[in-house]
Amino acid sequence: MALIVQKYGGTSVGTPERIEAVADRVIRWKQQGNDVIVVVSAMSGETNKLVALINAINPQGSEREKDAILSTGEQVTIGLLAMALEKKGQPARSYTGAQVRILTDDAHTKARIRDIDADPIRKDLAEGKVVVVAGFQGVTESGSITTLGRGGSDTTGVALAVALKADECQIYTDVDGVYTTDPRVEPNARHIPRLTLEEMLEMASQGSKVLQIRSVEFAYKYDMPIRVLSSFDEFGQGKSTLVTREEEVMEEVSVRGIAFNRDEAQLTVTGVPDRPGVAYQILGPISDANIEVDMIVQNTGSDGTTDFTFTVHKNDYIKAKAILEQTAAALGAKHCKGDEHIAKVSIVGAGMRSHAGVASKMFKTLADDGINIRMISTSEIKVAVVVDEKYLELAVRVLHQAFGLAQTTA
Amino acid sequence: MALIVQKYGGTSVGTPERIEAVADRVIRWKQQGNDVIVVVSAMSGETNKLVALINAINPQGSEREKDAILSTGEQVTIGLLAMALEKKGQPARSYTGAQVRILTDDAHTKARIRDIDADPIRKDLAEGKVVVVAGFQGVTESGSITTLGRGGSDTTGVALAVALKADECQIYTDVDGVYTTDPRVEPNARHIPRLTLEEMLEMASQGSKVLQIRSVEFAYKYDMPIRVLSSFDEFGQGKSTLVTREEEVMEEVSVRGIAFNRDEAQLTVTGVPDRPGVAYQILGPISDANIEVDMIVQNTGSDGTTDFTFTVHKNDYIKAKAILEQTAAALGAKHCKGDEHIAKVSIVGAGMRSHAGVASKMFKTLADDGINIRMISTSEIKVAVVVDEKYLELAVRVLHQAFGLAQTTA
Repeated sequence: MALIVQKYGGTSVGTPERIEAVADRVIRWKQQGNDVIVVVSAMSGETNKLVALINAINPQGSEREKDAILSTGEQVTIGLLAMALEKKGQPARSYTGAQVRILTDDAHTKARIRDIDADPIRKDLAEGKVVVVAGFQGVTESGSITTLGRGGSDTTGVALAVALKADECQIYTDVDGVYTTDPRVEPNARHIPRLTLEEMLEMASQGSKVLQIRSVEFAYKYDMPIRVLSSFDEFGQGKSTLVTREEEVMEEVSVRGIAFNRDEAQLTVTGVPDRPGVAYQILGPISDANIEVDMIVQNTGSDGTTDFTFTVHKNDYIKAKAILEQTAAALGAKHCKGDEHIAKVSIVGAGMRSHAGVASKMFKTLADDGINIRMISTSEIKVAVVVDEKYLELAVRVLHQAFGLAQTTA
Repeated sequence: MALIVQKYGGTSVGTPERIEAVADRVIRWKQQGNDVIVVVSAMSGETNKLVALINAINPQGSEREKDAILSTGEQVTIGLLAMALEKKGQPARSYTGAQVRILTDDAHTKARIRDIDADPIRKDLAEGKVVVVAGFQGVTESGSITTLGRGGSDTTGVALAVALKADECQIYTDVDGVYTTDPRVEPNARHIPRLTLEEMLEMASQGSKVLQIRSVEFAYKYDMPIRVLSSFDEFGQGKSTLVTREEEVMEEVSVRGIAFNRDEAQLTVTGVPDRPGVAYQILGPISDANIEVDMIVQNTGSDGTTDFTFTVHKNDYIKAKAILEQTAAALGAKHCKGDEHIAKVSIVGAGMRSHAGVASKMFKTLADDGINIRMISTSEIKVAVVVDEKYLELAVRVLHQAFGLAQTTA
């Protein structure tokens, strides 16, 4: 007997019929002798409706109030799923984030989980119940409702799995796992049955939109296996991707996948006096404005100045540029510029660690097709480059081909 | 400076524009130096949408889960109203029932309030904030969300007013107060500027749908003045009805209004052995099934048996009839019958106490127009009769005329 946490996204619970299908699947897992905790998102479209109401009233309103409103979508789904399970003869009990209680900090709209009280859930499971928990939400020490930010339901799922020492956290989506790259861009993309959490972390953070990055970080930290499955695969007989901290049999391939991201914008400040503390002086005000910075590159010039380039989410671009212009003026920098029309492409693979020449092969492949590289950033298991947005699809396809990731005919 | 509780129903907060209008009114009251607590319902239509989802999944589902779902409508409104107030420069803070905390028993879908923690609200008011509270909902000792039943937002308003010792509880509706009867049935219906809570209690329980009966009971018990106003009267210069425990100047009229109700059904069991405890044997199982009984009449026959008639809400009719048939068989009663096509008409007035002949005038008026009376029930300040549903409008009009309630031209 295993303890399984299953997380279903908005499309998987988008209609009463889909909710019943989820109930059927949950019951199959339960009948196979497992204890099951289910985490659900709001029905698809509901969160957007709530956002539209908020925007009609006061888009700049207090984030505490926004969270009170946004958290209602999941609260509806948990009640409906619990009732669907009951109808089919399976006792169930729903919990909001506040009821569990999923204690978070008070960073409304992007709160972080601090603690989960697992006792009431354990009691319900011992009584043979399926426990249904609202994803995406928690509660502060003082009782205000918080939300965990985009994709936060994945994080709720993994955090519950960790808190209850589950055997596996299953994330049901509209795809049956992770592919070598997005099949909409490269039709030859191949399904990956196993991946390390480190690789998944890079795939997710670089833009493969299967799992929310924070949930993967969480799973990595606590060594929680995640399985990505399709909720449209009715009998659960199809493919899935199992993501674990260490892959037992490391395959011989060095590159596992091509990730990409169109959501970033680039900001550059040139001719900055090259002295200690200048990176902090530039990025501090950005961070203080709660803007997340992704890639950061600094080049030292020959004239005692340095050029500094970084990327932010496109949504934060205008705000970040205004801040950077102030900073640049204060620092006596030469020039300050930005570009929204960029894309990031990464090659990812734990095998890369032991294979020299992967980065240079990437650069050569891109150069052969006339794709100019504007920025480079590397880690142990990935190489990311920024290119002009218009070259994105081409870059993904030529890299997918060059690293031998294409689907092999059986 | 006064402390005012204002309650706005679903139509009053039905669109973002209406929510902004409510915010404007709240701010006017605040700027006049009052502390203001606002209780809101779900936006009109929202609760029906949630009920439709519930019915699509499992209409017989657990009431705990139904409450988790149904309570989300009000949770959206409190957030939106708080944000509208903030936008207009008025600091505000929203509370769900669980956050206040409005402690209830665990009778899901019709819970009763046990206690309210007024401290956090007092603190917010002292800081100059407007406090916005979700109507219709509370929380059990163990943290489950409850709802208070139909019209429960009125009850939330009055209960908060009592807990915080407010000066007045204002109920904003789509009418500007209480009339001598429903103007849709009797165009000559007259506005009543002041009423005693006792009279209001009878008017509300007998079917004048302005206020929810439990809220009036609550106000009566704790001597809390209620003012009924129209939320469509933008500058608050219009009419209202103030309802207090004792009216200072008792007018000379004996009958204040004609109330009526089409929502009840009649059940009769005849030839029941006339012995002690028989009423309990008949009504006990009905009450155990959580069905509320309104009028009860018992006639003793000459042959040692008795006839027993009572009314229930039409929604409970099928269920109550099935229970009654079982009871009748067990008691060896002669006959068991029911009728859904009835209506109740009442004359209400505190002045009635000291005026003889009011009841007989009522019976004669109805008889003059050929309206047969099927059941009679009286209290100190009302006489209620059950008639065939088809005679309802006629009965209301002739009684309104007979007791001189018609609008006087100024």
